[in-house]
Amino acid sequence: MAQIIECVPNISEGRRPDVVEAVVASIKTVEGVRVLDAQSDRDHNRSVLTLVGDLETLPAAVLRLFEMAVARIDLRLHEGEHPRLGAVDVVPFIPIEGATIAQCVALARRVAEEVAQRFALPVYLYEEAASAPHRRNLEDIRRGQFEGLADKMKDAQWAPDFGPSAPHLSAGAVVIGARMPLIAYNINLGTPDVEIAKKIAKAIRHSNGGYRFVKAMGVLLEERQVAQVSINMTDFKRTPLFRVFETVAAEAARYGVPVIGSEIIGLVPADALLDCADHWLRLEGFTRSQVLENRIRETETE
Amino acid sequence: MAQIIECVPNISEGRRPDVVEAVVASIKTVEGVRVLDAQSDRDHNRSVLTLVGDLETLPAAVLRLFEMAVARIDLRLHEGEHPRLGAVDVVPFIPIEGATIAQCVALARRVAEEVAQRFALPVYLYEEAASAPHRRNLEDIRRGQFEGLADKMKDAQWAPDFGPSAPHLSAGAVVIGARMPLIAYNINLGTPDVEIAKKIAKAIRHSNGGYRFVKAMGVLLEERQVAQVSINMTDFKRTPLFRVFETVAAEAARYGVPVIGSEIIGLVPADALLDCADHWLRLEGFTRSQVLENRIRETETE
Repeated sequence: MAQIIECVPNISEGRRPDVVEAVVASIKTVEGVRVLDAQSDRDHNRSVLTLVGDLETLPAAVLRLFEMAVARIDLRLHEGEHPRLGAVDVVPFIPIEGATIAQCVALARRVAEEVAQRFALPVYLYEEAASAPHRRNLEDIRRGQFEGLADKMKDAQWAPDFGPSAPHLSAGAVVIGARMPLIAYNINLGTPDVEIAKKIAKAIRHSNGGYRFVKAMGVLLEERQVAQVSINMTDFKRTPLFRVFETVAAEAARYGVPVIGSEIIGLVPADALLDCADHWLRLEGFTRSQVLENRIRETETE
Repeated sequence: MAQIIECVPNISEGRRPDVVEAVVASIKTVEGVRVLDAQSDRDHNRSVLTLVGDLETLPAAVLRLFEMAVARIDLRLHEGEHPRLGAVDVVPFIPIEGATIAQCVALARRVAEEVAQRFALPVYLYEEAASAPHRRNLEDIRRGQFEGLADKMKDAQWAPDFGPSAPHLSAGAVVIGARMPLIAYNINLGTPDVEIAKKIAKAIRHSNGGYRFVKAMGVLLEERQVAQVSINMTDFKRTPLFRVFETVAAEAARYGVPVIGSEIIGLVPADALLDCADHWLRLEGFTRSQVLENRIRETETE
């Protein structure tokens, strides 16, 4: 089976398309790595790139990305709505096929060490690669942002995992790690009352007693006047989409509110949706190799 | 986008594995065609092969199949539970990706003409390739089987589309055509009363007033003592799985009977299941290119 590892670097540039294009172009020079997507946000002043490759090919691509981004992005001149602590802000590695989370953790550590050395950047490992429990969460590492980094790094709890013990003058620091595929999933409710969406978000998110692999918040979609439960599914294999959907629908019914629709933002692994079909069709003994396109790909590698 | 056309030849041999293997081996010699599956049934004395290829590569593979099957299978010596009229009984072409049903119809006609000429076999076109309405249905063409073929062919209504106007002495005739992917789908009910399954089958099948692209019957699973609605979905894009499921569940509820499970037999196109996820998740604006594995394959061909 071909190995597919996803890498989703977030860089602190969303207003100069030429810079983003240069970064993307530098990645594309690496054989065996493909750029699936590049999304820029002007308000955030941030871009999210989606790459796929494997254990052998991704390190070179990530190093090219750092080379270009560190050269072209100066955080001392950066402002935007999204919190950031680095020119390259975060680099997660994600197992998609023929790879394990453990392999991605090892990959993250290898790349982290090399990035720290090559670019004199402080590097923090996060999520599954984290070196301590308080450093798993990206938000906790990033709190204080670039501007607060020098002070933060004086605290022993926040010594970097690799690299110098002071921030890079223009590029700050970077967070590198491994995690399961994340699904950005929104559920729209038939009400303009955002308080209902907020209550439901609290009901389903881990931090308030909900599902283990769910982060969520309630927001109002201004134009549509629709309340939305905005969700990050952080491990769809263990907390599946269909269960979260059913729970939101049940919680909304308590207020006499229907689910009017839902949205998947960006990319979603096929399995997350096939699991939904399996659930609602009550399939018995169904295996992925029964999916025609999978069977074709299985015989491709023979 | 790579072109994928499926071909599912059914041959009248299910008891001599060496013959089936020889047929499969002859197909495998053709570059660009893959054998996904080969299932033999001793009671039926029949085998179903699943191949994939494209407009360019499939004709050669099908001709090799005929060459081997016509040489090794003699219908005068054949008996089995499944109705048959040819050593090669039926050969449907099915568009999966990057191909249309019209292209598969043209392909079926090309192959039919060449088979008739090369092997002196009478050929009937069926389904979407049929030359007349009464010849669309495989069961109608096959009625009378090999033994009744000589008499049947005296009737002007049953003159073959290509080839001689008398049966091949040992190989009979063959039915070639094009159709949409067929999904074999069974729904199991929480009751041993097969009459309920039969009533529900009548309710959903086209012939009795049900959905246009559904064939169905009620059967009893003896060992489990479970009534089953056994279904052929003949165009899942126009009559989708989720709609048939919901209808069966609603009809069963009328008898106080739940759906306890369902089964997909053999291969199913990913879209049929993704459409189910789309339905039950109430997705808004979801496109197939958001499926990660699809996006990877899209960029592969760039």
